[in-house]
Amino acid sequence: MKKKLIKPRTLKGFRDYLPNRMIVRERLIDTAREVYRSFGFAPIDTPAMEYSEILLGNGSDETDKQMFRFEDNGKRDVSLRFDLTIPFARFAAEHLNEVGTPFKRYHVGPVWRAEKPQAGRYREFVQCDFDTIGTVSNAADIETLFVIHDLFVELGFSNFTIRVNNRKVLNGLLDSLNLRDRSTEILRSLDKLTKIQAAGVKKELTESVGLSDNQAEKILSLISAEGTTDEILTQLDGLLTESDEGAQGVTDLRELFATCEVSGIPTERVELDVSIARGLNYYTGTIYETFLNDLPGIGSVCSGGRYDNLASLFTSQALPGVGASLGLDRLLAAMDELELLPSQSTTAVVLVTCFDRNHQADYLRIARQLRAAGLPTEVFPDAKNLGKQLGYASNKGFRVALIAGDNEFESGSWQIKDLAKGEQQTVSEYELICQVRELLEE
Amino acid sequence: MKKKLIKPRTLKGFRDYLPNRMIVRERLIDTAREVYRSFGFAPIDTPAMEYSEILLGNGSDETDKQMFRFEDNGKRDVSLRFDLTIPFARFAAEHLNEVGTPFKRYHVGPVWRAEKPQAGRYREFVQCDFDTIGTVSNAADIETLFVIHDLFVELGFSNFTIRVNNRKVLNGLLDSLNLRDRSTEILRSLDKLTKIQAAGVKKELTESVGLSDNQAEKILSLISAEGTTDEILTQLDGLLTESDEGAQGVTDLRELFATCEVSGIPTERVELDVSIARGLNYYTGTIYETFLNDLPGIGSVCSGGRYDNLASLFTSQALPGVGASLGLDRLLAAMDELELLPSQSTTAVVLVTCFDRNHQADYLRIARQLRAAGLPTEVFPDAKNLGKQLGYASNKGFRVALIAGDNEFESGSWQIKDLAKGEQQTVSEYELICQVRELLEE
Repeated sequence: MKKKLIKPRTLKGFRDYLPNRMIVRERLIDTAREVYRSFGFAPIDTPAMEYSEILLGNGSDETDKQMFRFEDNGKRDVSLRFDLTIPFARFAAEHLNEVGTPFKRYHVGPVWRAEKPQAGRYREFVQCDFDTIGTVSNAADIETLFVIHDLFVELGFSNFTIRVNNRKVLNGLLDSLNLRDRSTEILRSLDKLTKIQAAGVKKELTESVGLSDNQAEKILSLISAEGTTDEILTQLDGLLTESDEGAQGVTDLRELFATCEVSGIPTERVELDVSIARGLNYYTGTIYETFLNDLPGIGSVCSGGRYDNLASLFTSQALPGVGASLGLDRLLAAMDELELLPSQSTTAVVLVTCFDRNHQADYLRIARQLRAAGLPTEVFPDAKNLGKQLGYASNKGFRVALIAGDNEFESGSWQIKDLAKGEQQTVSEYELICQVRELLEE
Repeated sequence: MKKKLIKPRTLKGFRDYLPNRMIVRERLIDTAREVYRSFGFAPIDTPAMEYSEILLGNGSDETDKQMFRFEDNGKRDVSLRFDLTIPFARFAAEHLNEVGTPFKRYHVGPVWRAEKPQAGRYREFVQCDFDTIGTVSNAADIETLFVIHDLFVELGFSNFTIRVNNRKVLNGLLDSLNLRDRSTEILRSLDKLTKIQAAGVKKELTESVGLSDNQAEKILSLISAEGTTDEILTQLDGLLTESDEGAQGVTDLRELFATCEVSGIPTERVELDVSIARGLNYYTGTIYETFLNDLPGIGSVCSGGRYDNLASLFTSQALPGVGASLGLDRLLAAMDELELLPSQSTTAVVLVTCFDRNHQADYLRIARQLRAAGLPTEVFPDAKNLGKQLGYASNKGFRVALIAGDNEFESGSWQIKDLAKGEQQTVSEYELICQVRELLEE
């Protein structure tokens, strides 16, 4: 009787990573980790699954609907994490005595959201977050900017802009307009600026949020400030004479730009953009968004900001901090669009072909020698037609193939094939490693 | 009104990774990936969550109980993966046309099991698997052994033993004794050899499994063969005269040991152990177990074998292969026990202290220069008491601290403190990077 087969498939909104894409994803993650580490951020990990109570926090219905939530075998109400921020808040509250402050951590891991899948949006994706907590020093804010800058340089991008703003500026203005208690709705409107323009925002602020014409205009003049960084900062000074908080925001921004300059961060890569607000009330100081100028349409690929209190749900101890999150999968999609993804699907550079099954031990032996010399080397396992083996090597993106049969072994030599050029040469085994190296360096 | 706090805690059987442990876990994973890559294994990833139908396969009730299984928001019956083998089988069946054969993949990722937590066993743990599929060549079996060997050498172990056997040997004997259809029960008994010894196994084979005395003795004489590798192989030859499969198993083992020898794998690290059976019927050829000789009690830390058919649940195409799985968390526990875990919890080596808030921009600037020179450098964000900052640096495992105030900036110099020795010296900023390098190389 023929057995019924199960159709191999993934769930809607989930997907496999094949080698060509996964090799790039691993490279991106490695680069991010290396940059984070170079600043002294240390890795942590937290469970994929937590008590729903912890992950829901004071979340909205929207968050709730986005969670994969269920009852485990022990009747516990559990959920899969939908970001790395709430687990970090829980972690910080739980382990703060052990890790101390300031505490700089990075966390790379998958998160899950039961949202409707769309182009480029999946129900499972990897986040790469980094944060410095336990300090209110602007040094940490400036370093966050440095991290984002170095990250994109190391990832291979040159044409990117980090837009910076400081929420104290807007909060200061709202204070002086007696509008601080309406900040959530106002922020929500301001986030639509690129979509509905200044006129649309003004209409919404006056008609829906209920601001006076004067109030709406003051806010709009703040977020529409233009000119050089210095000119904008001077305009802000003028608008914020009545608010200490606002003035502090301007001071922090000035210090940030001055430090970028003395530290050699190219000025064109960091832009003061008083229009960015990053909707969440959670942010209280510097905020960051990062755009690839060749692909502005995909939005910010690395965003974050300063917050006053990371873990207020879990501890009465105030935990201020600053950090950002790299949208790894969005970046992968961007690289795909910019044709920056290589088609290579091998991790090795040399393929030792199996020309004659009787010499298998020699193929395995020589591969081991090449590996010991630092050359990633694969051995083709079967004595298939040589053309097929070379085709395999070319398709996967190997650089060099080695071939040897009775003749070569009698004379102690190998044939080296440069797969890009199609050229082939015979060398003695003594010279083999040097010759392969030379070929690879060409 | 005081807000009620949520108690920060993880679920039973789950845990956080703090930096000191996570730094080691990342190093282990990086090393494993580097070794896999050096052999041409390419990374893949699959979703954490799949249709339960796929993950259950023809699983037992036991597997079923171990799965985190639930209904998602779309009423789908889904589960978290409990190993990386079944997702790979599904992946192979789904993408085989695209990836071709032979296909060599590694996969590093968390898996989840709802089993009773015990010492060293958690409900979430990371697996590091590698497999070669689409070939029956013994070359792939031999390379699997090479991978395991290189893996443990690169991980920093020298005193380990890889025990190898070939299931064809036992299967051949069972064939010639007409017992092939009882292999599952027989294997289950043989797996208890170390626990209940030969006499216990014989009793079980005759009394519970129903073998004749003669049959049980033949099996026991096979799995008790002793002597040098050559001597054991000769004894096996004698026991397996009536079985082609058995003879093939012996031939494969001979080739494996001969290739190890010509390839320079130290003979004491690979041991023919005819007593290992690895319970699962799934394995059909070479099998591997790896033991740390300083900690035999923790069992095998890297195990695997050859199988005839990876994906029979999902495709009618036969997919033979061979591979193994590194028990990463078991290894971490072992390193903990062997006191091989460093206490270091920083990823940086240099701490730039904040001696004077007014020089913050200089601290950030110099840190950037050190990083550009390849020296991971952290800046302390707050102008706290210098002793506290140096204490922070020592506790975390920094090697060097830099200190500078007005005096130093006037003379263009920095104070370098060697945190291990407690020695301090003053150097000009021009010499700073060289001096720090020299200190680190001491």
